[in-house]
Amino acid sequence: MLDLEAINSASKRIDGVARRTPVLTSSTLDRNTGTTAFLKAENFQRVGAFKFRGAYNAISRLTRAQLATGVVTYSSGNHAQAVALAAKLMGTTAVILMPEDTPASKMDATRGYGAEILTYDRYTGDRVALGSQLAAERGLTLVPPYDHPHVMAGQGTVALELFEETGPLDTLVVPIGGGGLMAGCATVAKNLHPSIRVIGVEPEQANDTQLSLRKNERVRIPVPHTIADGQATEIPGELTFAVNQRLVDDIILVDDDEIRDAMRFAFERLKIVLEPSGATSLAALLKGTLTGRVGVVLSGGNISVERFRDLLT
Amino acid sequence: MLDLEAINSASKRIDGVARRTPVLTSSTLDRNTGTTAFLKAENFQRVGAFKFRGAYNAISRLTRAQLATGVVTYSSGNHAQAVALAAKLMGTTAVILMPEDTPASKMDATRGYGAEILTYDRYTGDRVALGSQLAAERGLTLVPPYDHPHVMAGQGTVALELFEETGPLDTLVVPIGGGGLMAGCATVAKNLHPSIRVIGVEPEQANDTQLSLRKNERVRIPVPHTIADGQATEIPGELTFAVNQRLVDDIILVDDDEIRDAMRFAFERLKIVLEPSGATSLAALLKGTLTGRVGVVLSGGNISVERFRDLLT
Repeated sequence: MLDLEAINSASKRIDGVARRTPVLTSSTLDRNTGTTAFLKAENFQRVGAFKFRGAYNAISRLTRAQLATGVVTYSSGNHAQAVALAAKLMGTTAVILMPEDTPASKMDATRGYGAEILTYDRYTGDRVALGSQLAAERGLTLVPPYDHPHVMAGQGTVALELFEETGPLDTLVVPIGGGGLMAGCATVAKNLHPSIRVIGVEPEQANDTQLSLRKNERVRIPVPHTIADGQATEIPGELTFAVNQRLVDDIILVDDDEIRDAMRFAFERLKIVLEPSGATSLAALLKGTLTGRVGVVLSGGNISVERFRDLLT
Repeated sequence: MLDLEAINSASKRIDGVARRTPVLTSSTLDRNTGTTAFLKAENFQRVGAFKFRGAYNAISRLTRAQLATGVVTYSSGNHAQAVALAAKLMGTTAVILMPEDTPASKMDATRGYGAEILTYDRYTGDRVALGSQLAAERGLTLVPPYDHPHVMAGQGTVALELFEETGPLDTLVVPIGGGGLMAGCATVAKNLHPSIRVIGVEPEQANDTQLSLRKNERVRIPVPHTIADGQATEIPGELTFAVNQRLVDDIILVDDDEIRDAMRFAFERLKIVLEPSGATSLAALLKGTLTGRVGVVLSGGNISVERFRDLLT
């Protein structure tokens, strides 16, 4: 079960290993949005995204026997590098399942942390099944990208740190992909400040959590097309949805153009780099519909100069 | 005369008005350079560059009579916006002389702070003479971009804040344009830590300070061609050179490709945006010739997505 105690415990575990990322403010942003906004900048986290928190919390809790054999996960994104680095820091080995069309730069970055990469066909392979099979065959421990209590608890430390700096907020805005970041952050928010509004952000085409919340059950959508690849999930996680169903008050959808505008605002006004998924919550804020003191989680900044250039042309 | 007391006084004056910018570290950067580097990120300063410190320190010291009449300066760059904002905050008016071919976006940004803009022909007009003439005619107080004790003292607060966080350093690396930032920072560095090496960075084509240090007198060079427009000075300031001549140990030159590589490193690895002049000291660090604990001043981050894209193609 995910509770505040689990997240406090994760906070102790990642202390001195994960970065305590800065909370940014901007008078221009406040003027443009009519809010007082506090941006938790996880693009400055190790491996460039919040994912390191959950991966390290999970892997650092493994038994000596589990660490001796190693871990496995599936991800083409930030979770891959997070697991690779966390495994390295814990002195164990990581096997990462990636679609075979993953950009070489991402594979190289993951290999750079010492991980072994195995590829599969994105269209015919079932990554969850492949991961379980590999775990069974080699005796590896699976560290899933979001649907795991220790992963969710690790991601919740984002909100813990944010509130430590800001005190109570009227609204907390968190991007939702699989829902692990939201599950952790919402748990912190509603426990510490029960009257806070917790708002999730999804790309317009990847609104599986919005639809699931409406139907009160997990809904699967077709493979979403969005520039926010970190949030292109087809269905919410089982464990994450159980939490988010209870705690999330509303969903804001943002389209690709709004995400691009937010990336530009971050670049030109805030002087920071956000990847598309890292900019969706800022895009939601820039819609101008929120008021009061608003916490906004910027989830990551992993984007090459070339992709940034292509997206913002 | 510029001394530590003047800079401590400036520090009190800008407290709560200027931002205390973060000091960034990066294990990747340390590994790549063989140093322990501390990056003072003035791209997060108000108006996006260190210039606000000096402008505010100077303008906030004007008499009531001077404030009633207003200030004037010449700049097409960050000093223009710095003076405009500082004047607004002090309840006075600013007239800014800009070359008539200054990009509209920069003029708009400066006007946005309530300043009046007058233009001149970059090739036939003498901006210093025009500034003095305007000051005399209208009774305005001139706030020059670097050659002024209060401006230099304000810029020195960058180093003061850096050392407060890092303690003693082996080397301090500071970009040099007119030399105001260096004069202030070198004064702090050599007063607090007499054995520190203070290194200036200039674009290869804009090495007026390097040549002047070698000749032991101010040398004028042809109009420099460099992407680091904030450092394209033809001759060091009179007051700044008097300080830097005493305190600067060495100059490192960087070419445009090295500046581009540093901008890319900042974007992809540090997740921050630096304008070309803001990246020259990082470019110097990335040459790999420095060792030990190194402080590096990143001076600014004012660049549009379009110019960034064009420069890094």
